[in-house]
Amino acid sequence: MVDLAHKINADAPCFDLLEGATFQIETTATIEKDGHFTRKIRMPEHYGTHIDAPAHFISGAWTVEHIPPERLVGPLVVLDVRAQVEGNYDYQISIGDFARWEKSYGVIPNGAIVMARTGWDARWNSAKDYRDADANGVMHFPGYSVEAARFLVEERKIVGIGIDTLSIDSGPSQNFAVHHYTLAHSVYQLENVANLGLVPEHGATAVVAPMKLEGGSGAPVRILALLR
Amino acid sequence: MVDLAHKINADAPCFDLLEGATFQIETTATIEKDGHFTRKIRMPEHYGTHIDAPAHFISGAWTVEHIPPERLVGPLVVLDVRAQVEGNYDYQISIGDFARWEKSYGVIPNGAIVMARTGWDARWNSAKDYRDADANGVMHFPGYSVEAARFLVEERKIVGIGIDTLSIDSGPSQNFAVHHYTLAHSVYQLENVANLGLVPEHGATAVVAPMKLEGGSGAPVRILALLR
Repeated sequence: MVDLAHKINADAPCFDLLEGATFQIETTATIEKDGHFTRKIRMPEHYGTHIDAPAHFISGAWTVEHIPPERLVGPLVVLDVRAQVEGNYDYQISIGDFARWEKSYGVIPNGAIVMARTGWDARWNSAKDYRDADANGVMHFPGYSVEAARFLVEERKIVGIGIDTLSIDSGPSQNFAVHHYTLAHSVYQLENVANLGLVPEHGATAVVAPMKLEGGSGAPVRILALLR
Repeated sequence: MVDLAHKINADAPCFDLLEGATFQIETTATIEKDGHFTRKIRMPEHYGTHIDAPAHFISGAWTVEHIPPERLVGPLVVLDVRAQVEGNYDYQISIGDFARWEKSYGVIPNGAIVMARTGWDARWNSAKDYRDADANGVMHFPGYSVEAARFLVEERKIVGIGIDTLSIDSGPSQNFAVHHYTLAHSVYQLENVANLGLVPEHGATAVVAPMKLEGGSGAPVRILALLR
């Protein structure tokens, strides 16, 4: 059992700098004064380890509560691309990377939940290093190529695609091509995934459990990997 | 695979009438205007289908992110007390109810997650019927007795206790004895559980996946039942 979610607090790195400022906690009762402890939370749907529902980019597509529960559990495929990323922070994961994975572990099963381990979560505690923006404000971190996403969706029938960075599109992306492509094919996205170094590349089962927000474009998500 | 969480929206019945008013959604981007769709959410930690962490009533006890992941997956025990509740809306589940369950299915296993099916979720779409407050504002709905909770915790070593009502203490409770007892023993609580009629009383596995709120007294939770 491995927990693939980061803790949610006000320090989480954000895609949009504005989003961090909107994470707020208000303590509404304390044990000392009220006999019990409660809080209120205020946050963007896409904050911390979170899911992007198809409706995030596609009109009329599934919002969070419409994603069928059957798609929330599946074989966990972890692709280690740390070596490729070391020489190129904007690295886009290729079909060749998955060919290499399949050479080791066999064909990616239908219904898989695929996660890229780029090593980026080592930067999680520094929003500056995790966003990795240059002098022009362009962020630099790895993501998927559209070709790899198309291979996973059309040739391997995956149900979810995740990564340990801010976005499944690499940092400099302006058109969010991988977002558009996968969400248009009803494949959800998992961003800011944690602890991929603690799970095997093959053989675990992922349970993806988003907060069931009606009409949500996305939601905080808890992801648990069940080891065999 | 059965989803045991209600959808989260502004209509969810609340323990505290004030809490409903604080659930707010703000749309922050639309596909028409911005090319993508996002929202911000504002809500109490104890809203919709949610978890109570031990820190909800016990100073220094686990907040949500401290609950060990190993305790979030376990054998699902569903106790059907609909018949008992029909004659007494304030019914408190007894040790005898669990003795009956064990006669059918064997001893409740260590590490179980126990859920009471009272039938109350049929009222979910009417906050008035679900809260079921009388002319004096006293709510009426079923919960657990302290004796049953003590039996489950001390004799059966359960890790989580849940119910399809607003509280594991019955509606008229003023001292929240079952809350105090179970949270003091590091057993988390699941309230407003849905769909217990769709899972077997014995043999499923529960995956309890709270939003990983640092310092949280509780959190929205997705609960998935994996059938064999």
